Amino acid sequence: MEVVNKYVSLKHHVDGHPSESDFELATTPLQPAPGSGEVIVKNLFLSIDPYQLNRMKRYSSSHTAITAASKIEPGQRIDAYGVGKVVASGRAELEEGDVVAGLLGWEQYTVVRPGTVLMKVDAKDLPISYYASVLGPSGLTAFAGFYDVCKPKKGEKVFVSAASGSVGSLVGQYAKLSGCYVVGCAGSKQKVDLLKRKLGFDDAFNYKEEADLKSALRRYFPEGIDIYFDNVGAAMLEAAVANMNSFGRVAVCGAISEYTNAGKRAAPDLMDVIYKRITLRGFLALDYLHLHEQFSAATSDHLRHGRMISLEDVSVGIESVPTAFVGLFRGDNVGKKLVRVGELEGAEL
Amino acid sequence: MEVVNKYVSLKHHVDGHPSESDFELATTPLQPAPGSGEVIVKNLFLSIDPYQLNRMKRYSSSHTAITAASKIEPGQRIDAYGVGKVVASGRAELEEGDVVAGLLGWEQYTVVRPGTVLMKVDAKDLPISYYASVLGPSGLTAFAGFYDVCKPKKGEKVFVSAASGSVGSLVGQYAKLSGCYVVGCAGSKQKVDLLKRKLGFDDAFNYKEEADLKSALRRYFPEGIDIYFDNVGAAMLEAAVANMNSFGRVAVCGAISEYTNAGKRAAPDLMDVIYKRITLRGFLALDYLHLHEQFSAATSDHLRHGRMISLEDVSVGIESVPTAFVGLFRGDNVGKKLVRVGELEGAEL
Repeated sequence: MEVVNKYVSLKHHVDGHPSESDFELATTPLQPAPGSGEVIVKNLFLSIDPYQLNRMKRYSSSHTAITAASKIEPGQRIDAYGVGKVVASGRAELEEGDVVAGLLGWEQYTVVRPGTVLMKVDAKDLPISYYASVLGPSGLTAFAGFYDVCKPKKGEKVFVSAASGSVGSLVGQYAKLSGCYVVGCAGSKQKVDLLKRKLGFDDAFNYKEEADLKSALRRYFPEGIDIYFDNVGAAMLEAAVANMNSFGRVAVCGAISEYTNAGKRAAPDLMDVIYKRITLRGFLALDYLHLHEQFSAATSDHLRHGRMISLEDVSVGIESVPTAFVGLFRGDNVGKKLVRVGELEGAEL
Repeated sequence: MEVVNKYVSLKHHVDGHPSESDFELATTPLQPAPGSGEVIVKNLFLSIDPYQLNRMKRYSSSHTAITAASKIEPGQRIDAYGVGKVVASGRAELEEGDVVAGLLGWEQYTVVRPGTVLMKVDAKDLPISYYASVLGPSGLTAFAGFYDVCKPKKGEKVFVSAASGSVGSLVGQYAKLSGCYVVGCAGSKQKVDLLKRKLGFDDAFNYKEEADLKSALRRYFPEGIDIYFDNVGAAMLEAAVANMNSFGRVAVCGAISEYTNAGKRAAPDLMDVIYKRITLRGFLALDYLHLHEQFSAATSDHLRHGRMISLEDVSVGIESVPTAFVGLFRGDNVGKKLVRVGELEGAEL
């Protein structure tokens, strides 16, 4: 019996804001058995990430910088991080029924090629969705970016943008666990409330209600900002730099407000950068794989003991991937955006 | 007999390009004898530096960031680094005739207040002007910025802007001594020739002849830039970031093209910063006083053995200070701009 694999692909390159009509759902027969070194995975949770938009552009400097950001062509399958269940394995170390995390795709089943890393997940005491969110690349990004790039000291003042997002929501929690004072910004009252009430941020504000971001930050940080964890770029980065203390550090993690508009660029005042000796540093989680074990152990422990929570926003079904993705740029998601494309239990094929 | 001290002061705050008419020459009687802890210094060489313009502005974020960049008010004396000769000393460790370097002023004589550091200069085997240029703050800026901020490795590709200036000309020489490939840019054919023929740069170009800085840098760095030592900011910083290699470092030392125009700001592409994991770091020499001894010993040795040269552009007389200063923003100076306001030999008062 032939199994059909539904997948989402691009109709054409996307420059500017993406919309649902840029994508199409297609089907292809699933290959019946894995080749040597291949693994056939039934996808369970897919991580839906803003950076994928850069891969969909006709041109982006990111395409050549690293393989993980290579260009996506129309019609192609789209690889994406996720958690799945092995349904057939051509690798000795994996067997049917194993839950694995790694680079899967916007599809129901992924034939994972030889050489592609799949991490076996111990799905006993934490929800398996965590391995696509708080314990996946978003988590490592937050952990490495905050601890290694920002090098926080107890008592320092930390500002996080897109603070209710996949990475920001974790940075804020790590910062609180490190004894920092943390303020986050987000784009709705609901998100702001959540930052303060559920995630333990010391304060939070809705940036859409602030006419002057520079003054807003002066109000929230009367003693200045020591660390800015930047997920948005543009005007917020300028305002943060203007409010930074001497020897302040900016982790340049993402620039979502620039992804949809290449003409919108942050121009932080270099006078501030020089005289306040500010460091701005771009980074990627993939440079911190050596921290993965430490990150994973510490974070799992925080989660088990209720010192951290995983904020997830889950849509259901492969058909919902385009809306889930497009929604990232409208600020629809609250926390990590995931799509559940399959069930752990039940028929494997 | 009363000794008259000529000094240069501001007529009014300067926002935008400075001109000679913003300054005035005035005189004041020199105090006859130093108080306890004071030293009266006959100024010999004054260091003329672009950053002073930021101090002359009505408003600049630099004013509050550090004391050394405090605001200059109209009519005030203007402190400035220089080398001079002690004519009267209220300090036990200094005596008449000693040559000293430290914070003096745009004046013929400076009464150095108690607590202000004066470094005794051994003026035997190197010209004393060197202590206001290559062995002064410009030198320490180049040394600390290149070695500590840029962390060069042998064979790396280094780009220096304002490369014939006080700091750039030294960064290029340090880079060559470290086995790097170095290209500089400057604003005239004469300067470009000098970089290549006299300072040992591997290549150099006149930025005024390049319609597209991004393409120009692609031509000069077909394998990309590893280190950018930025003295100018604005469009050149954007072009350099666009041409940087992964893990590239930018030492943000100065932004002379932004000093005269607060509206002109660099907006480097954050996509490059993130995906290429670029670090941009502002710094000031005063944070590196702990490196002074190492810097001074190494650099003196390079100079004595002809491995480095000090490029100096000297005007004569306190009256020439305004033109010397204004000329920095027209690119008049070739190398370190100094004004010789007094002679080592001859009458001390």
